Amino acid sequence: MKKSDYEDAIEPMQEELVGMARWARVTGQRIVVLFEGRDTAGKGGAIRAVSEKLNPRQCRTVALGKPTEDERGQWYFQRYVKHLPTTGEIVLFDRSWYNRAGVEKVMGFASDEQVEQFLDQVPTFEKMLIDDGILLFKYWLGADQEKQEERLRERLEDPLKRWKLSPIDLAARDKYDAYTRAREEMLARTHTEWAPWTLVDFNDQKQGRLTLVRDLLDRLPDTECEPAELEFPDLDHEPLVETYGALKPIANYPID
Amino acid sequence: MKKSDYEDAIEPMQEELVGMARWARVTGQRIVVLFEGRDTAGKGGAIRAVSEKLNPRQCRTVALGKPTEDERGQWYFQRYVKHLPTTGEIVLFDRSWYNRAGVEKVMGFASDEQVEQFLDQVPTFEKMLIDDGILLFKYWLGADQEKQEERLRERLEDPLKRWKLSPIDLAARDKYDAYTRAREEMLARTHTEWAPWTLVDFNDQKQGRLTLVRDLLDRLPDTECEPAELEFPDLDHEPLVETYGALKPIANYPID
Amino acid sequence: MKKSDYEDAIEPMQEELVGMARWARVTGQRIVVLFEGRDTAGKGGAIRAVSEKLNPRQCRTVALGKPTEDERGQWYFQRYVKHLPTTGEIVLFDRSWYNRAGVEKVMGFASDEQVEQFLDQVPTFEKMLIDDGILLFKYWLGADQEKQEERLRERLEDPLKRWKLSPIDLAARDKYDAYTRAREEMLARTHTEWAPWTLVDFNDQKQGRLTLVRDLLDRLPDTECEPAELEFPDLDHEPLVETYGALKPIANYPID
Amino acid sequence: MKKSDYEDAIEPMQEELVGMARWARVTGQRIVVLFEGRDTAGKGGAIRAVSEKLNPRQCRTVALGKPTEDERGQWYFQRYVKHLPTTGEIVLFDRSWYNRAGVEKVMGFASDEQVEQFLDQVPTFEKMLIDDGILLFKYWLGADQEKQEERLRERLEDPLKRWKLSPIDLAARDKYDAYTRAREEMLARTHTEWAPWTLVDFNDQKQGRLTLVRDLLDRLPDTECEPAELEFPDLDHEPLVETYGALKPIANYPID
Repeated sequence: MKKSDYEDAIEPMQEELVGMARWARVTGQRIVVLFEGRDTAGKGGAIRAVSEKLNPRQCRTVALGKPTEDERGQWYFQRYVKHLPTTGEIVLFDRSWYNRAGVEKVMGFASDEQVEQFLDQVPTFEKMLIDDGILLFKYWLGADQEKQEERLRERLEDPLKRWKLSPIDLAARDKYDAYTRAREEMLARTHTEWAPWTLVDFNDQKQGRLTLVRDLLDRLPDTECEPAELEFPDLDHEPLVETYGALKPIANYPID
Repeated sequence: MKKSDYEDAIEPMQEELVGMARWARVTGQRIVVLFEGRDTAGKGGAIRAVSEKLNPRQCRTVALGKPTEDERGQWYFQRYVKHLPTTGEIVLFDRSWYNRAGVEKVMGFASDEQVEQFLDQVPTFEKMLIDDGILLFKYWLGADQEKQEERLRERLEDPLKRWKLSPIDLAARDKYDAYTRAREEMLARTHTEWAPWTLVDFNDQKQGRLTLVRDLLDRLPDTECEPAELEFPDLDHEPLVETYGALKPIANYPID
Repeated sequence: MKKSDYEDAIEPMQEELVGMARWARVTGQRIVVLFEGRDTAGKGGAIRAVSEKLNPRQCRTVALGKPTEDERGQWYFQRYVKHLPTTGEIVLFDRSWYNRAGVEKVMGFASDEQVEQFLDQVPTFEKMLIDDGILLFKYWLGADQEKQEERLRERLEDPLKRWKLSPIDLAARDKYDAYTRAREEMLARTHTEWAPWTLVDFNDQKQGRLTLVRDLLDRLPDTECEPAELEFPDLDHEPLVETYGALKPIANYPID
Repeated sequence: MKKSDYEDAIEPMQEELVGMARWARVTGQRIVVLFEGRDTAGKGGAIRAVSEKLNPRQCRTVALGKPTEDERGQWYFQRYVKHLPTTGEIVLFDRSWYNRAGVEKVMGFASDEQVEQFLDQVPTFEKMLIDDGILLFKYWLGADQEKQEERLRERLEDPLKRWKLSPIDLAARDKYDAYTRAREEMLARTHTEWAPWTLVDFNDQKQGRLTLVRDLLDRLPDTECEPAELEFPDLDHEPLVETYGALKPIANYPID
């Protein structure tokens, strides 16, 4: 998909997102969106597509690192609960509690018993949030291994993307199939009536973002909500110019 | 400045920023960058120019809201100290402790005594951070009132930008001059040898971003630092494709 | 009950508590004890009886104040979840999530719908903690209104206790009966197989404390666990005495 | 000193402390008290003497454990700053930032350079707090090594106190003299006009507590402040008694 076509298509959706965010603030909604999926599928880009035009004080992205030792000893959901939204907030989870059923399971960072317990608890946990009125959306982003390989290689070679490449990503290349099976079990156990999963094809990332954002907007109720009127009278003087005292701006970057 | 010219110029700088971030991680630097300036000058865009290619787990943006009642009762710097970086981190402050000498002073949210005390304490406070080894950079972004008016009007009229327009922004239109005087006093009191200010002209925001990023890179020591070698062997099978069980991806967004 | 009799009885129990805490640390238990009950029943004294001989770094008391505005907008359990124990910790809740079914219901701080939802969620919430391996004990401390009146009057008149007397305590005097009904409903809905309540008569507070501590110890599994051996060789010199330079200790408080 | 004599002497002081706390709340004071001193000197008991009659929601004790890896990378004072009081609060530090000049220096947990830097920064750091209006009191509790040995041995032998005995305590026995020298340097560098140290002899712990509490009260300004009047009308019915439904209180602990 061409960049300019993508931009033409995403812009009106971002306008809708801005309207949705206003509605969430005015009506006090709490919105949680989980982004899970294949490594390199494009979670980061999808999150940016949702958030980039929103007020960062209202829409937070949560990307938790490795748990600390204290966190490892706590109730598994505790460190995620801490980041749930208050009235009017939108929280985007870049990976989420589902780590336990994905990377932790496949890479052996959690025991079978821990994974089982997680899969048992998660529908109940999510039901509590939904019953409390939180709007929860769960997206899983898929991509064929060929695409994954391309993107991993790009991360390896592009200096701008090299930091995205972790040793775990590389170790996970042999486990594409194990991830597929883990995903299937996760879906079987946690695709519930009250908190369903939505799968999105991210073989084409731009198209995937459009698909995801459109779906998210369609799932939200009608969120029309006019911004408040604001007075914007004319200044009663000519606009002032910057004047500097002892300290001056540095020289501008030269452009032609 | 044309968008494509901007992109051609910023991209190699972002590559340098990525290298700088790797250096910061490997050598355990702590970097703090403050973004202050006129309303609408373009702090948000400048922060994005610095951060967008960096690992969000390493480079955090801190944009504090109104202090809570408890925070108002604490030592003024306390709520900012909480967000200072640990080893290897880069923290970008979208407004900072200098609020007290800017908006709080001009809009009367802080008493004269509080502003005085702040201006007295800030050089000492910053000296402690610098002596502790933190690399601190302070940018102030300027723009003529004509540009400010244009941008405020754009925020009023563009649905994507309307949320950026706060009643305080409007109330501040009459105080352009008071802000100038507040800035001059702030510079006089807090432009120190150990923590100097850098003023950047943001009448052209793209040029301003280039000027700022170039300056930031030039102020940092030589940050060459090769990424670690990584093995990337061929897969020993054909790449797999996504296969789905009961739950399928939703239909892709239609593109031509 | 006489103070010296109480002390003779509580001391061996506190020794058992210390042993229990060692066991919890060594075996990585997480223990949560909720203290609920009538105003003035003696929650604070019971908590002190449990905690005073324990390592404050291991055994924390959590007494949350009024929720902040942000907390009021969150999932009800969120601010409590934050304080749940990690491996080896003991957390004593001086009032707990049950506020919603007690004071908030009786004093009208929560809506009927909120109370209903709370009573619906709490068994599920507690089941998740228990299934995660947390040891949860719930105590409700009762006292006749006559005792309550005596103790309120004492708080009014004793300068050392005056701060314990809140306007809510006084407003609640007319609602003894409403509290009884609220307690009965709370028990009917939340006295579960996996997280049963234990009621303790605190008409005599010293006896109540002995009853509660004995019960808590009896509910815990056999917690024998010898402390590690430690070498304690003789010093190879005469013990040294404090010597002071320029600054000397202040004069001792005069005693006969 | 006899226990009953101690109790007769401490009680009126605790009444003064309660009055002081009321004054702090009403006038919005922020009070910080640091408790440093020899191992086993009696910091814990002194803290209890100050705090036990106060509202735990107003008077907090802060006893920080080993820093986490993140904290070790931060500005040294950062994790302490987090616990400074807001309006009306009293914070008692059971050990404090002075760890760096005491145990960390003597046991080699901090480098010479780190200790030097700490001793350089601390007067400035404390000046900032004082200038901000915080009332800061610093106590150092001394005891001869003979007492220390007695108390260590008691911790070893008394099951109630065994947890207080850490391997570091034992390793520190050979370093009594090094601690003396470290204390002298700490005093020389940090006993300032604005934040002076007070040394208290804790060879007799009860007497030490009386000395310390008396001194603390004497250093505070006149803190008379009457509690608000409260209405306490008679009940308009006989006091009610506890009545229980299905679930009854457990049997009382048998007393004669």
